[in-house]
Amino acid sequence: MPQILSSTDADFEARFTALLGMKREDSPDVDATVAAIIADVRTRGDAAVIELTATFDKLELTPETLAFTQAEIDAYCAQVTPKDRTALELAADRIRAYHDRQKPDDARWTDDTGAELGWRWSAVSAAGLYVPGGQASYPSSVLMNAIPAKVAGVERLAIACPTPGGAVNPLVILAAKISGVDVIYRIGGAQAIAALAYGTDSIAPVDKITGPGNAYVAAAKRRVFGRVGIDMIAGPSEILVIGDGTCDPDWIALDLLSQAEHDQVAQSILITTSQAEADAVIAAVDAHLQVLERREIAGASWRDYGAVVVVETLAQAAALSNRVAPEHLELCVDDPDALLPALRHAGAIFLGHWTPEAIGDYVGGPNHVLPTARSARFSSGLSVLDFMKRTTLARMTPDALRAIGPAAETLAISESLQAHGLSVRARLNKLND
Amino acid sequence: MPQILSSTDADFEARFTALLGMKREDSPDVDATVAAIIADVRTRGDAAVIELTATFDKLELTPETLAFTQAEIDAYCAQVTPKDRTALELAADRIRAYHDRQKPDDARWTDDTGAELGWRWSAVSAAGLYVPGGQASYPSSVLMNAIPAKVAGVERLAIACPTPGGAVNPLVILAAKISGVDVIYRIGGAQAIAALAYGTDSIAPVDKITGPGNAYVAAAKRRVFGRVGIDMIAGPSEILVIGDGTCDPDWIALDLLSQAEHDQVAQSILITTSQAEADAVIAAVDAHLQVLERREIAGASWRDYGAVVVVETLAQAAALSNRVAPEHLELCVDDPDALLPALRHAGAIFLGHWTPEAIGDYVGGPNHVLPTARSARFSSGLSVLDFMKRTTLARMTPDALRAIGPAAETLAISESLQAHGLSVRARLNKLND
Repeated sequence: MPQILSSTDADFEARFTALLGMKREDSPDVDATVAAIIADVRTRGDAAVIELTATFDKLELTPETLAFTQAEIDAYCAQVTPKDRTALELAADRIRAYHDRQKPDDARWTDDTGAELGWRWSAVSAAGLYVPGGQASYPSSVLMNAIPAKVAGVERLAIACPTPGGAVNPLVILAAKISGVDVIYRIGGAQAIAALAYGTDSIAPVDKITGPGNAYVAAAKRRVFGRVGIDMIAGPSEILVIGDGTCDPDWIALDLLSQAEHDQVAQSILITTSQAEADAVIAAVDAHLQVLERREIAGASWRDYGAVVVVETLAQAAALSNRVAPEHLELCVDDPDALLPALRHAGAIFLGHWTPEAIGDYVGGPNHVLPTARSARFSSGLSVLDFMKRTTLARMTPDALRAIGPAAETLAISESLQAHGLSVRARLNKLND
Repeated sequence: MPQILSSTDADFEARFTALLGMKREDSPDVDATVAAIIADVRTRGDAAVIELTATFDKLELTPETLAFTQAEIDAYCAQVTPKDRTALELAADRIRAYHDRQKPDDARWTDDTGAELGWRWSAVSAAGLYVPGGQASYPSSVLMNAIPAKVAGVERLAIACPTPGGAVNPLVILAAKISGVDVIYRIGGAQAIAALAYGTDSIAPVDKITGPGNAYVAAAKRRVFGRVGIDMIAGPSEILVIGDGTCDPDWIALDLLSQAEHDQVAQSILITTSQAEADAVIAAVDAHLQVLERREIAGASWRDYGAVVVVETLAQAAALSNRVAPEHLELCVDDPDALLPALRHAGAIFLGHWTPEAIGDYVGGPNHVLPTARSARFSSGLSVLDFMKRTTLARMTPDALRAIGPAAETLAISESLQAHGLSVRARLNKLND
């Protein structure tokens, strides 16, 4: 059974706070192992990557077979059914169309002193995407990482995807091809992150690494951060559904289960103004848990981390949701637009009965890489901006320097930075000649 | 003497690569100490912060004196000279005007299936700014961190600034007041970062922490990352000047020294197409190093990390600059706009002879918190966006779901995520009733 809370209970605040504080992740401490792997790859390059791949992935590679050839890529793509290919292409088109709108504008203007100011955006030159192997090898995640990079203008986009024992997911290969990925390496783990960050003879280094991975990959990303940029370190998935008794309880139950089935430490929460809806959703979840393919995972998640919260008003529901700052927020209410202004912290919001979260995982258009573990309070989902950077621009004229230079000199002196002041003064003196 | 390179030398590529790889920072390993301090603050709250402040800052505080009172703030502000106050206000006005333009736009549109898509930006609720005490306590950095936060709409903005032995820099207090900071705590070090991240009885927790600090502060920021957002971990400052022989060599020398005087591990590089300019700048730097107040620091930086590179063309200069990806890039050339398109990786670009980098440190308008250590390849200076986050929005209609739902179901099945598929199918079935 999930936790069941009611805002009218005497101990509600204490129980809700405890729900917020629940620790779902217990990362193993793999940092020492990862540090050794990174050092090995930095020292021995290809040889280290190949050895580690033989050890961890039971796969014998050579420098020549680190990357898939174009013929191999084509052959795997040909294995994909037309139905799957069409679905993947529809998803890619929609994701591309959404992310195209995120491209930021440059700016340049002249202010009242005559100074020209502005900024200019440019793409990261090279990026690497990590794609887990095995069960968590999701073609949709390839699209969600690769398409924003290509929309941003990244010139060289590499994927690292382990193929344990040589097992390849053809859909991952096709997703990479559709997204415009330039090279796919069959390597994984901390050794793949190290190779992408530092480069080897056969693997060119990149400037930014994104994508999910296990504890070793996460620890490696933390370690190479600074040398390259990284995206967030994603935690287990979450959904919060706000209901007002107007949605089919079976739909809400399936939406809750679609997060729960990801991971036994995923979290699904329903906050509703309707006690009847709460009861009906709980019953529907239980019914589905009898037959769902991933019922063991989903059942454990629902039992250990699930929660149903009954409140008196939608305003209360919104306030509680803001405290959770969920990764995914569904507004399964009659008038979602009326509720939207009250919702401040969430990775993605799905409005109305006809928008199951799963649409956002695949074909909606927005990114499915989203902030977890309450980090929507301060961070955003993956976007085109993650593969770009901004350079600020400034150009003084003699008049502009005359107008604002003396203040710069004054502040430089107040901070005891004499050369700063002199660099301005030397130019001002020239103007006063 | 700085390193002197010429692009026509046989060993040029090797020497330039070595210059790029120079390690200037050697962070002491303070992680264990910092972990203990954070744990202590989490467990004992105010008591721990007060004890650690007594130990490290030789300052006895109580829960009541952790923050400056309004009367104290006003008294310190009254100590600032009118000249300094006017300069600080001019800087604040210009920084605010520049950052006002960075406020991002929300978007919402309907696509051809009838699906409504979009995103919405919102401010981080509460932010904390770290301001170092002592010599590196720069009022300009208060403006550069606090103003973007307030422009973003951060509601509660706290400063942590240690006051060792009770020493307070009135300009820092005034800069905080001008920027609209809500509370100033007289605490520092890892204990301040821990208090801001986790909160104590007297210090409310924040969602994002920015600002420079020593190795302890940097290690603490890395450790609390995830619990709160953080900005970049800044390294020592850098400048790269591109010259074509048209600028006064004395101006270039002062610009190079204005970075060198920050820190003996700062780095100043001139790349010029003019051998005469190279010689004249080196002579001018030497002359200033005889008399500059901070000549020991600036001299060490110039000797150990400075470089003068003579090239044949400005295109070569731009290509080398892109490899450096400098924090500050000055184009001390006759036609900076012609050179600009070739320059891809830099934190901030200063165009033309009349734009010393020091203008950007104080009054230009753009932010002076910029990516160091080649991280301009993948990251940007501080901006309003660092204090905001984006929530994506999606709303399906029955028609939209009919159009794209089946593809989502197909992909969910291909990823073995049955509940994802069922959450879409349940709705599609209703439409087919």
